[in-house]
Amino acid sequence: MLCLKPRRNQTGAIIMSDERWMKRALALARKGRGRVHPNPLVGALVLRQERIVGSGFHHAFGEAHAEVNAIHEAGSLAQGATLVVNLEPCCFHGKTPACTDLILKSGIKRVVIGMQDPHMRVHGRSIQILKNAGLDLKVGVLEPLCRELNAPFIKYVEKGESHVTLKMAQTLDGRIASADGSSRWITGMPSRTTVHKMRSEHDAILVGVNTVIRDNPSLTVRHVRPHTVNRIILDGEGKTTSDCRVLYQPGDTVIAVSENADADRCRNLEKKGATVWRFPAEKNRIDIHEILKKCAERGWLSLMVEGGTDVFTQFIKAGASDKVVVFIAPRWMGQGLPVIDMPGIENPNEALAFRIHQWRRRGDDIMLTGWM
Amino acid sequence: MLCLKPRRNQTGAIIMSDERWMKRALALARKGRGRVHPNPLVGALVLRQERIVGSGFHHAFGEAHAEVNAIHEAGSLAQGATLVVNLEPCCFHGKTPACTDLILKSGIKRVVIGMQDPHMRVHGRSIQILKNAGLDLKVGVLEPLCRELNAPFIKYVEKGESHVTLKMAQTLDGRIASADGSSRWITGMPSRTTVHKMRSEHDAILVGVNTVIRDNPSLTVRHVRPHTVNRIILDGEGKTTSDCRVLYQPGDTVIAVSENADADRCRNLEKKGATVWRFPAEKNRIDIHEILKKCAERGWLSLMVEGGTDVFTQFIKAGASDKVVVFIAPRWMGQGLPVIDMPGIENPNEALAFRIHQWRRRGDDIMLTGWM
Repeated sequence: MLCLKPRRNQTGAIIMSDERWMKRALALARKGRGRVHPNPLVGALVLRQERIVGSGFHHAFGEAHAEVNAIHEAGSLAQGATLVVNLEPCCFHGKTPACTDLILKSGIKRVVIGMQDPHMRVHGRSIQILKNAGLDLKVGVLEPLCRELNAPFIKYVEKGESHVTLKMAQTLDGRIASADGSSRWITGMPSRTTVHKMRSEHDAILVGVNTVIRDNPSLTVRHVRPHTVNRIILDGEGKTTSDCRVLYQPGDTVIAVSENADADRCRNLEKKGATVWRFPAEKNRIDIHEILKKCAERGWLSLMVEGGTDVFTQFIKAGASDKVVVFIAPRWMGQGLPVIDMPGIENPNEALAFRIHQWRRRGDDIMLTGWM
Repeated sequence: MLCLKPRRNQTGAIIMSDERWMKRALALARKGRGRVHPNPLVGALVLRQERIVGSGFHHAFGEAHAEVNAIHEAGSLAQGATLVVNLEPCCFHGKTPACTDLILKSGIKRVVIGMQDPHMRVHGRSIQILKNAGLDLKVGVLEPLCRELNAPFIKYVEKGESHVTLKMAQTLDGRIASADGSSRWITGMPSRTTVHKMRSEHDAILVGVNTVIRDNPSLTVRHVRPHTVNRIILDGEGKTTSDCRVLYQPGDTVIAVSENADADRCRNLEKKGATVWRFPAEKNRIDIHEILKKCAERGWLSLMVEGGTDVFTQFIKAGASDKVVVFIAPRWMGQGLPVIDMPGIENPNEALAFRIHQWRRRGDDIMLTGWM
């Protein structure tokens, strides 16, 4: 029998570690999902004697920062309090005034920060300002979780590219469709529902043109709370036909073609409402990194890549993917389209590896999440 | 804060459910592993007012049954007590007297049984005897766990065949070796240690002759407590050469050949200490079920099949496997030997499926256990 009594302070409040408060700040930050773009997700708490006197998150791009909301809620109680925030506060006057000024003015004595802001206009400067002003600072609390939450923002700031999640749905023997490619549902309904939820959390979905032609998918969000998602078709040769379902769904549809693609066809697709992006290309192969840069410019910071074989292989070979989510159905197909097709690896130690982050059950299937 | 107080009886002992006591009985039963053969693993507890007054397990073939050990330990305290046992007691005089007689004589009032004994000489008869004698009976407590513990015994009694576990070690894209087949270590050290532990818990290992020729493995138990394991080489054409390492290891090595295999070669292998089993065969393909029957006759009730592609495919197609343990390394190979090679499946729904039982981490790898 385990019977743990929490420690309490003189006011009777349970004493929590900085890590537990940071988890609360992260949960707050998540509330801004889908609206703060291209800003990062930020949540903030003002604590006084282990009680929350102010809390806030960044609601939408252009609106007040999380710290501002939290400190305003705390009002005069911020005097001598602790601020917990998942990202280093800003120190410049952009759409809103600098947060460091407000923190200093409010009389806050201690600041707990999840991670340094990678943005070149901040990048540790705010931390220095607050330290110089004599505040008690703790930086790097639950940093891995903080980085995960804002991974697309961080990649954009650091590389100018979109953040890529490869989503694979396969049998245990690594097949994503039967030999003739006609089969679609490898995994079960719970896995598919999770995929739709993932779609709603990404700015755009990317698939190869072969998948579009073979399966004619809608690539929309279903089975979960409705959400509009954008689509990118990787189509070096410009093979997309104007009767594809993807062209007539809510959200934007982009066809990424090489400069060699037929101009008339592209114009026709544009007439149907699609956007055509042209890229320089060797042998109709578009550089994946160019697409990611273009997506980031367009404001689509998180991309979910859904296949097929050729697209997965290109992304993995280009080192362009950041995260991988694999749904594994407990079955063997024997033959069929492989998830990856790539010659040349002689030694298993040379095989492209990733680091498993977590694995969960989804109905009969296993859902594996990993970092590249 | 969760603070659960256990219920106690008037003597102060914690009141436990039958399921919890059964878990204790199963833990006891496991102590006989490797020695009771071909008997089942059995553990028994005698309880009086929620305290153990007698406990025992079946130590070795020919020795006293678990119930006998437990009741003898309890002595006169068995009067009015409860007996917990994972398998229906026996009701016939074999190597030892019938357990039902002893139970009735001891004055036990209540019997909790995990599962009915599938052996045709028992098969519910003991349960009937005890019921008719007016004892309070509960049958089927934690039956799935009880069946799992004695799965090889049950399969032997019901089908006369050995129990088969397929052990696969593969990349995420279902490759068990690189294209030239020369690579061996797909998974990491923790997975390999687990494999050696699994070997020590099986009566024999089975591999195909191609694996023996290509990798020249020793197929012994290493990295864990030393244990002698037997080996079966599936070798329809009789291709095993006399310089293979498997021939010179502790334990028996059986070469399963078809009747068409060269007699001189077989004699030569027998001279080197191997046992040759000849089977009727079509096109040098031996019927898997014949091998399993022969193994069971030989007293090898649990078989671990370690590959390669062709052997896995044959076992799965024949419906001859009971359990599957897959070690998945978080890497993609791109190309190479597939874990299964089997044409003809057009629809993923027709793909050969299994039921995932559990999944665990082994170093960087995932270990998936399933029932066919």
